[in-house]
Amino acid sequence: MDVLELDYGQFQTVYNILSFALAAMIATTVFLLAANTRVLPRYRQAVIVSAIVTLIAAYHYWRIFNSFEGAYVAVGAGDPLAEGQTIMDLSYRLVAGEGFNEGYRYVDWILTVPLLLFEAIAVLALAPAIRKGLMLKLIPAAILMIALGYPGEIATDTMAKAIWGALSTIPFLYILYVLFAELSKSMRTQPEQVRKDLNGLRWLLLATWGVYPISYMFPMFGIDGPDAFVWRQVGYSVADVLAKCWFGLLIYKIAREKSRYDSEQFAADEFKEAPSSQNAQ
Amino acid sequence: MDVLELDYGQFQTVYNILSFALAAMIATTVFLLAANTRVLPRYRQAVIVSAIVTLIAAYHYWRIFNSFEGAYVAVGAGDPLAEGQTIMDLSYRLVAGEGFNEGYRYVDWILTVPLLLFEAIAVLALAPAIRKGLMLKLIPAAILMIALGYPGEIATDTMAKAIWGALSTIPFLYILYVLFAELSKSMRTQPEQVRKDLNGLRWLLLATWGVYPISYMFPMFGIDGPDAFVWRQVGYSVADVLAKCWFGLLIYKIAREKSRYDSEQFAADEFKEAPSSQNAQ
Repeated sequence: MDVLELDYGQFQTVYNILSFALAAMIATTVFLLAANTRVLPRYRQAVIVSAIVTLIAAYHYWRIFNSFEGAYVAVGAGDPLAEGQTIMDLSYRLVAGEGFNEGYRYVDWILTVPLLLFEAIAVLALAPAIRKGLMLKLIPAAILMIALGYPGEIATDTMAKAIWGALSTIPFLYILYVLFAELSKSMRTQPEQVRKDLNGLRWLLLATWGVYPISYMFPMFGIDGPDAFVWRQVGYSVADVLAKCWFGLLIYKIAREKSRYDSEQFAADEFKEAPSSQNAQ
Repeated sequence: MDVLELDYGQFQTVYNILSFALAAMIATTVFLLAANTRVLPRYRQAVIVSAIVTLIAAYHYWRIFNSFEGAYVAVGAGDPLAEGQTIMDLSYRLVAGEGFNEGYRYVDWILTVPLLLFEAIAVLALAPAIRKGLMLKLIPAAILMIALGYPGEIATDTMAKAIWGALSTIPFLYILYVLFAELSKSMRTQPEQVRKDLNGLRWLLLATWGVYPISYMFPMFGIDGPDAFVWRQVGYSVADVLAKCWFGLLIYKIAREKSRYDSEQFAADEFKEAPSSQNAQ
């Protein structure tokens, strides 16, 4: 539920974290689009899809930022400020407009979470049958996970929240099973560094996706009001930046390593010490 | 006709579905532009035109979204909200401004529908004489179909609506005839997977284009008022996403398959299991 009043520091914290997330999404999108030709053709799909994920998130953070800015109005001080007043005297009250629209987060997730799993599988460049099998398990599970979470997010009743939350956890656990058990079989013969990075990718996913259910459960434990609202926004934003930007950059790193391993020409062009740097001690 | 009042849930549904369609159009545009070099040169025209279609639609959804947001004002609650009120108490009333401009949809369609048919033919890379013949039949018919639909859309008289709707159906049926009867002759020698995808493309077109006349006919059957308005917006938006984004991605998939079939080098670079992934079982 929307919070009726925020003090100056609370308002500024949410405002700045949303702006930070927007900047990170835009920067990662442009980087990945510019850099996608720096991997072998078979890995470009994964890098381009990583850019599309951060692009979709950038769009939604822009909307979320505008929605937050428009949802509150400064009160408690004259306009312009009177002698002796500072902006710290302001507080921010919810206006009767559209409210702060959290629906954007779910629209974002239902588009981006399946794509995140898609890029993680695509970058492995597995045999088509294995790739298709993994996608057919992971992507429907991801859509189900988000779709089952939404009714709980907007529910005001604790029991309804708990039931939808529990239902949404089932596909989440299934995704973890596929990633940690089934995917391991396909990782045995990957080059050493790729295996390490893939492992990092899985743990990053587990750690960041874990933030969402924690934020989701805040109201169930009576953690509510302005501070909980601020922490939830900070938690969602930081988790989004790690799960999308950091994740996308890891995908790019794996694509680079696999390209180096697959092609001697690529390794020579991209990884050999430059003649202009040789014997530089 | 414009609806005078929407409740909170109705307003939010239209708001979020328009935002979702806009996000999907932007994401597909950037993806197709970034990915167009991942098909052989002869198929790039089709992929670029697919991106232009979603770009034009993104522009119009941005306009439609802003027009909808500006057409309604929140009423029924204090501003700022009083103690005990929530944004669920709000309703939204039409303001005396420009109204919600549905004309954007027709401007969009008259530009994008001929281009959609263009990309479907272009991706086949047929002999020039056959391609030109198909284009000369499909494109004028598409323009005629949209142009004849518009007077009926804005008409308040049921008889006028029915007449313009019937006139618009004639070129629609002709397009279906060309796609399902004439085009089949040119499909016999395409590779198996391409034939399957082309068939999917035709049925996607038939299924999604079918939504528009249904939405169009709502008012003729007395289905009117806020709920009908909301469903019409949802129907148009979902149909647009399928008919433009999904359609464009299918064009891209067909272009990839035809490239793979046409060039051994392309197939090896793009489709062969990577050396760094081999023996992964």
